[in-house]
This record gives sequence, structure tokens and C-alpha cells, in this order.
Amino acid sequence: MNVVFGADIGGTDIKLGMFQEDGRLLSKWLIPTRMEDNGRLIFDDIASEIKNKMQEKSVSSQCVLGIGCGFPAPVDNRSFVRNCVNLGIKDIYPGKEMEKRMPGLIVRIGNDANIAALGEMWQGSGQGRRNLLLVTLGTGVGSGIVIDGKIVSGRHGIAGEIGHFMVDPLETEHCSCGGTGHLNQIASVPGILHYARKFLQEDKRPSVLREKEDFDGADLTDAAKEGDAIAMKTLDYCMGHLARGLAIAAHIIDPDIFLIGGGMAKAGQLLIDVIQKHYVANHYLTKEETQIRLASLGNDAGIYGAAKMIIDA
Amino acid sequence: MNVVFGADIGGTDIKLGMFQEDGRLLSKWLIPTRMEDNGRLIFDDIASEIKNKMQEKSVSSQCVLGIGCGFPAPVDNRSFVRNCVNLGIKDIYPGKEMEKRMPGLIVRIGNDANIAALGEMWQGSGQGRRNLLLVTLGTGVGSGIVIDGKIVSGRHGIAGEIGHFMVDPLETEHCSCGGTGHLNQIASVPGILHYARKFLQEDKRPSVLREKEDFDGADLTDAAKEGDAIAMKTLDYCMGHLARGLAIAAHIIDPDIFLIGGGMAKAGQLLIDVIQKHYVANHYLTKEETQIRLASLGNDAGIYGAAKMIIDA
Repeated sequence: MNVVFGADIGGTDIKLGMFQEDGRLLSKWLIPTRMEDNGRLIFDDIASEIKNKMQEKSVSSQCVLGIGCGFPAPVDNRSFVRNCVNLGIKDIYPGKEMEKRMPGLIVRIGNDANIAALGEMWQGSGQGRRNLLLVTLGTGVGSGIVIDGKIVSGRHGIAGEIGHFMVDPLETEHCSCGGTGHLNQIASVPGILHYARKFLQEDKRPSVLREKEDFDGADLTDAAKEGDAIAMKTLDYCMGHLARGLAIAAHIIDPDIFLIGGGMAKAGQLLIDVIQKHYVANHYLTKEETQIRLASLGNDAGIYGAAKMIIDA
Repeated sequence: MNVVFGADIGGTDIKLGMFQEDGRLLSKWLIPTRMEDNGRLIFDDIASEIKNKMQEKSVSSQCVLGIGCGFPAPVDNRSFVRNCVNLGIKDIYPGKEMEKRMPGLIVRIGNDANIAALGEMWQGSGQGRRNLLLVTLGTGVGSGIVIDGKIVSGRHGIAGEIGHFMVDPLETEHCSCGGTGHLNQIASVPGILHYARKFLQEDKRPSVLREKEDFDGADLTDAAKEGDAIAMKTLDYCMGHLARGLAIAAHIIDPDIFLIGGGMAKAGQLLIDVIQKHYVANHYLTKEETQIRLASLGNDAGIYGAAKMIIDA
């Protein structure tokens, strides 16, 4: 039986998975991300974890198709990473680092959001589709795009960076990238909480959120589900901007389906309903519905997609 | 020697071309578009033109690789056209119509803007690239996208419809599609002329445009080249919005190059310079320059791309 490994490198931990070729997950586990020494330890750790797993499961090198790695930074068309702010790594070919440590093995590198999209296409909510856009709503707004079954990474590796769309020309506060009015500032979890606090000040209607010293994304969506006016107004505003961004993306790539993942997706169908309502209002060219659905693989999407890069190689 | 035919169906005329496999154009000609009878005559005419050309050039059917056709409407992923407003045709599979008339020949159908992008990649300014976006600035703002060497048409055939991006949320006038503040309303030739007239009223500085009873896009760009303040202000405003649209597209597909074609492209390098200036100001994620260049095939881009669809088939 042939197997393939997927690794999804994050700022806190590295997710690892061993898969059958047909997509069956045989084993998954986590290790902490050690950032010292310009990321060198990350590659050491992944290599030793995979070697140990092969020994544990009695898998010979001949049976390993390869290892796919997701990286939390733009990966350009030469698999080069110029700057990975999250890990403090610059100017590196992560694939070459892995190959040095695992000679003879096929290695593929992808951006984390992009491989998550590929993973969802392979074994998640995108099954049966060849063209999709996955948005992740978490600390930031990320997205990954698959066209004709393949990841679109772009010349500089910034394809799918819809978080840096300008959606509000009237906004004067700055996005982390230096721009203003970007989707990141409005539809990320911190963005949503920012607007909730703003609306709580401006709008004097009662809200359960006022009773809390602090609240998070789950508190907000729970309140919205209970009919809380301010929570609902916040979701409506922030997801309205996200939907406008998706409508714009539809005018460029017109995907089969949009998937919504990340921490905010735990809010479930309410979130989809709000996004869908605004999406339809911002889309004039087709009255046929484009499906918007919840992603289904959660934090495992990355390891699935990383493995799929090898299977497609 | 094998040949391939390309046809680009427009509202006024049909452009036809006979090519060698290597891209050499052997013959090109035009016929009027006859719109009667739900477009049936269009397919009759193309078929008889190609048969005549084969006879004239002594080309046997065995040597014809196929015929590619560009259609001025969204062509969905089943090569179905729901509604071609320009030609007054609805609910048609143009490929099946052609195949009926030329049995045994391979036929491929594409949207006109999309095949123009493919044509520019093959034999125009996009040579050597696999990922590009071609914008055409004419009666409307159209665009075609090529990713990994292939046209992206999308589920509903509306990929690349950047003319229907909302770029100005403050605009209250309506676009032809029903939306407001769309790029079409600002960066098409009629849009540019609209803003020129508006600025001539609001801004009292002298302008050669005031001396004309009526002026067109060429008058405007000629005036801008001579340093006319109002003409330059108009270009700056309208191309600034286009550049914002391109920056947004870069955050989705991050192409190797943007090409600018259509009637307005006759303005030449000045147009590119204005677009480039605003593009850089709207793009935060990479400081590496994305190339923006003039398209080079003009009205022939469509027949080149139509032929290329067959060569790639």
C-alpha cells in the first residue's frame, strides 16, 4: 500500500497526516513549531517525525509517494518564500530544505490557505468540484483558489489574498499591510469584534454583549442566533462586506462553489444565510445561484491538501 | 500541412482566419454578421466561408484540425449560451450548430474576450506567459483570463467580467446590468467621455475639448498627450478606477502580466503609465512590479485565440 504525508506548518504547531492514496487518513498528529534558527528546526522536526511514523507503521521508503507541506506565507511560482512573517523566516526554498533531509522523496510546497482549498475539494465540502474558492475567517481573512482541480498561487504567490481587497473606500484606519478599507479589517474575527464594539457604542438598543466584560466571535454569533439586535447588525455589516468581496471574485473566476471555513465558520448556517443574502444583492450577471457552503474538514483541510499535491504531482 | 480555422463573431461582422499549427496566419477576412433567424445564418455563413476557403486553397478535410469560434456572450462550462444580447440569440449550443454544418470537424466555442486573451498569449504581447489578464477598453470594459495556459470561463461563463466590479460605492447611476458604481460605467469609452463632460462643467480651466462640438476617445487622449488639464484629469480618474480593479484582480489570480487592449489602447504608453501609477498605489502585498503592457494583436486577437483553442484541444 502506498502512502503520502501531509504537513501543515502553522505559527504554533505543525499538523501532520499520513494518508492512503485514495484519501483515507491513516494517522494524524501535532508537534509544536520551533521557530529558532531561521526555521531550520521545522524541517528537521518534520523529517524526523515522518521517519519515526514510517518505522512505527512499518512503511518502507518505496511505499511513500512523497510529502506535501503547507507554509503560512506566499509561495511563489518557483516554490520560493520571500518572507514568512509568522515564522520569522526569509528567502527560503522550503522544498529544497525538506529534500535535503529526505533524499529521493518527492516534496511539494504550497501556501496554507491554498492547500486547505485543495483539501476541501479532495475530501471535504468541495468534493466533485474542480473550481472553488475557500475563505477562512480567523485572525485574518485568507482564501485559497482551485481552478481546473489545481491550486492557483500566482506569480508572486499572492493569488487568493482577498483579505487585501479594498472594500470600503471611506475607511481611514490601516490594514496590517498598509492599505485602508481592506476586507481583513472588517471580516476577520478581530475586525468583527471591532465593529461589534463600535455598534455597541453608537446604537443604544439592549444587547447581551453589553453584560460581558469581554466577548469573542462565538459569543457574538451565539447572541445573533438568539436575535440580539447589535450582534445581528454586526454580522450583517461585516458579512455584507465579505459577500461583496465574494461577488467581486465571482466576476473574475466564477467558481462552482464558495466554501467558508476558519474559526467563524463554527457559527454555522446563520453565517452562510447572511453571506448568501448579501452575495445575491451584489451579483448582477447571473441569477443562477452560486453555492456558498460551510467547509467541512476544519483544521485538517491543510494536511489533506498537502497530501493531494503529491498525489497530483 | 495541417491548418486550423478561427472565427470571431461580433455584432457587426465575423472575422475569420486560417492558420498553420505554429500560429502563422495564412489568410484572414471579414463577413457581415446576419442576425436573422435566431443566429442560424451566422453558422451557415461561417460553414460556407470555410468550405470555400478550403476549396480556394486546396485544403482537404483531413488537413483541417478544427474550427474555434468566439462568441460575444458568456459561454458556460457546457459551452452553452443562455443569452447573447448582441446577436439576439438565446439558449443555444453554438458548437453543436457548427458541428451539424461541418460533420466530423472538431469545434470549440469560447467567449470573445476570453479567446482574445488566449490569442495574445499565443502570438501577441503575452507570448511566453501562462497566466495573464487582458482588459479591453471599448464600448464596455471586458476581460479575458488565462491561467496555466488555459481560458478560465467559470461555471456560468462570467469569469473575467471585471466590467461589473463595483469600484465606486458612492455612484448612484446604474450600469447596463442594473448595478451601480461598476467599472464599466467609468473605464469604458462612453464612461470616460461621460466623466470628461462632467469635469468640463465642474472645472473651469481651459481645455481644447471645450472647442469641439463633440469629441471621442482619441480626441481625449490626444489632448491629454498635449498636456490638457481636463483631459488628463479625466484619464487619471477613470484609469485610476481601472487600476483599482486590476489590483483587486491581482489579489485573486496574481497573473504574470496584464494586457490592455480595445479602442482606448490606441492611446499607447500614456495610458499604461497612468494605469501603472495607480496600480502600484493600490497594491500592498508585493513591491515587485507586475507588468502592464499594451496588447499587440488588435482586432485579430480573437481569431488567433479561437484557433489556439483547437490546437490545445
